Amino acid sequence: MPAVYHPLTEEEAVQYVRSRLPGFFFPDAQLFSREIGDGNLNLVFRVLDASTKRSLIVKQALPYARVVGESWPLTLDRARIESEALKIEGELVPGRVPRVYHDDPELALTVMEDCSDHIILRKGLIARKRYPHLAEHMAEFLARTLFFTSDLYLSPEETKARVRQFINPETCKIAEDLAFSHPHYDADTNSFNPLIRRDVEAIWKDDALRREVAVLKERFMTCGQALVHGDLHTGSIMVTEQDTKVIDPEFAYYGPMGFDIGALLANLFLSYASHEGLTEDPDERRSYRRWLLQTAEDVWNGFLERFYRLWDEHVKDAMWSAPGYREGYALRLLQDSAGFAGCKMMRRVIGLAPVADLETIEPLEVRAAAERQALRIGVQLVLRRGQMRRIEDITALVRREGEGECG
Amino acid sequence: MPAVYHPLTEEEAVQYVRSRLPGFFFPDAQLFSREIGDGNLNLVFRVLDASTKRSLIVKQALPYARVVGESWPLTLDRARIESEALKIEGELVPGRVPRVYHDDPELALTVMEDCSDHIILRKGLIARKRYPHLAEHMAEFLARTLFFTSDLYLSPEETKARVRQFINPETCKIAEDLAFSHPHYDADTNSFNPLIRRDVEAIWKDDALRREVAVLKERFMTCGQALVHGDLHTGSIMVTEQDTKVIDPEFAYYGPMGFDIGALLANLFLSYASHEGLTEDPDERRSYRRWLLQTAEDVWNGFLERFYRLWDEHVKDAMWSAPGYREGYALRLLQDSAGFAGCKMMRRVIGLAPVADLETIEPLEVRAAAERQALRIGVQLVLRRGQMRRIEDITALVRREGEGECG
Repeated sequence: MPAVYHPLTEEEAVQYVRSRLPGFFFPDAQLFSREIGDGNLNLVFRVLDASTKRSLIVKQALPYARVVGESWPLTLDRARIESEALKIEGELVPGRVPRVYHDDPELALTVMEDCSDHIILRKGLIARKRYPHLAEHMAEFLARTLFFTSDLYLSPEETKARVRQFINPETCKIAEDLAFSHPHYDADTNSFNPLIRRDVEAIWKDDALRREVAVLKERFMTCGQALVHGDLHTGSIMVTEQDTKVIDPEFAYYGPMGFDIGALLANLFLSYASHEGLTEDPDERRSYRRWLLQTAEDVWNGFLERFYRLWDEHVKDAMWSAPGYREGYALRLLQDSAGFAGCKMMRRVIGLAPVADLETIEPLEVRAAAERQALRIGVQLVLRRGQMRRIEDITALVRREGEGECG
Repeated sequence: MPAVYHPLTEEEAVQYVRSRLPGFFFPDAQLFSREIGDGNLNLVFRVLDASTKRSLIVKQALPYARVVGESWPLTLDRARIESEALKIEGELVPGRVPRVYHDDPELALTVMEDCSDHIILRKGLIARKRYPHLAEHMAEFLARTLFFTSDLYLSPEETKARVRQFINPETCKIAEDLAFSHPHYDADTNSFNPLIRRDVEAIWKDDALRREVAVLKERFMTCGQALVHGDLHTGSIMVTEQDTKVIDPEFAYYGPMGFDIGALLANLFLSYASHEGLTEDPDERRSYRRWLLQTAEDVWNGFLERFYRLWDEHVKDAMWSAPGYREGYALRLLQDSAGFAGCKMMRRVIGLAPVADLETIEPLEVRAAAERQALRIGVQLVLRRGQMRRIEDITALVRREGEGECG
């Protein structure tokens, strides 16, 4: 660890900003600092000048997983990964990520735009809010960040330099364990509603499923297709009615494109399942679920339209231009996305780090019904991913597996 | 380039060895040095004490492709790659690669065991020699180098450190261009027998083929499954009746396992096709071809037997242990190998760097018949790779496509 590293206090965050970003606030401004992090791995300070309302975020990596304590050490390199990924994403999709004002490798911190007028998308979905631009914004984010960081656009030398830059063993290991392994056997880290134990045990015993999850895990570990965000769930997306910002790319690495698309789809489908318990009124539930699946379809279809447009405009390689290769690439991507979505749904029900969408449902019986839907959808997405030809095949599967309990 | 770097002369190679490996030769030994490189990218000095017969090889990378001249610059990092890969391979499969005595990053050179009592396998195959231990040795080399450098054995952190260590953009680019792109359009680098122009043009027009080669190129570029040798043709294998040594891993990188297996199969099949022209006597030809295909089968089956044994002994991961995953992994590997073999066969007929097996056939009409066989086999291996279930399906395909002209 660098000699100067230490976790900042709220007061030190103010001093740091005054000295390193002297132009940001007026010299005589009275600044308020509050640590607002609810994550597991970082300190997050919001520094505010209440009179002008100008504010910024100081995000500092901790050398251990906050949720567990100092017994789970983590390197600080992820602060570099996050800030470098944010800058690349910001150039590729201006406005879709917080602007980086400053970064400091020694203190493992990044000073960035404050998005406190936005809320975490997951909270919005729990509250049955609709976001008319969400699908379009995320389609744009996915198409541009994935296309422009892949071999489809970059020279092979550029891609390999980026692969090296974003080798990220520590956060990848978290995903390898928590998303692709632990949910499939009786691991200590697992934590699930006791009422669904039978369903979970059925998953542990399902050899065909475990085999397919292993194939997806292998793909996660060996396929360096593009710079993926790596943790694109609805807790990493902040929204207003009009705006969308993707935050927290500290899990970024060169991985399969479908891992990001699948993460977003999985979280829309988890929300779908959660409203089994969150929303009593059947009309409201049906209507909101329709919006969720429409959003999933719009994300993929909007992504694909943009991805194809970028392909036609930028792809020069003689081989990538082979007739039909583009369509085959997109199909494999859709099927990858379905598989990764399935893994992530199971993981969020069975494993460590459950999602609030499901966790807040009471009583446990109702929660169990929603969780069973999520598990059924997840299992089928993994097993049937090779049959998916269009996003509508995926949403039909969600609807079908969701019907068992919600009618 | 490091300041001290300069290409050695034969005399300097002697001085270098005397000063850096003082114990290797007697101090008063009279040493003979000869530059014996016939490759494209390096100087190779053999330093010999004629009285004791003790000898060694000094291999030095040139900062340009020797075959083209100084107009094609190359970095010297591949000397590091080669020497680090040789050391890893030597630990995993003792005796199957030359021993590394010394390496020198500044001069981009490696001092290693002299295998001059061996001959290049390709020459042996042209001369219809049989090597009773070749299949077994190569099966062992492939099984151990691929298994022990993959995520099946290494921890994820170790694999990622190795991926970083072997990022090899320059030699990968050569393979990307020469093996996966240029043969599929009218590229300047191509060079082929004018009598097969119609066959080559048919390949250039074959959209389905180009699409499938693009998928394999993508896999070559994005799939970091194991530390592959990267250039495992029969010119990178040296043999005696009893021994086998794999040399020249300067193209090593983290890639798909099937790329190495496919390279070896492709070169056995190229030899198969070449004997259409090299061997007039039909009985001799038939008999030697039978040995070649038997060797291909023995390589794969011997590989698989060892790979499975290593798997059962060493694989601890709960997911990799899922019932049936091992068999599915092997099937995908076989199909990858078939596809990469097909690409390599086409590349050696159409592209830069033809193989002596075919190039030495005279007259051109006879050579064309052999080359057409090689192309047909290559095309079908790529297009039908998904139908291959066992190595015997692959050798049957070779026999079928080879029959068109040889009866």
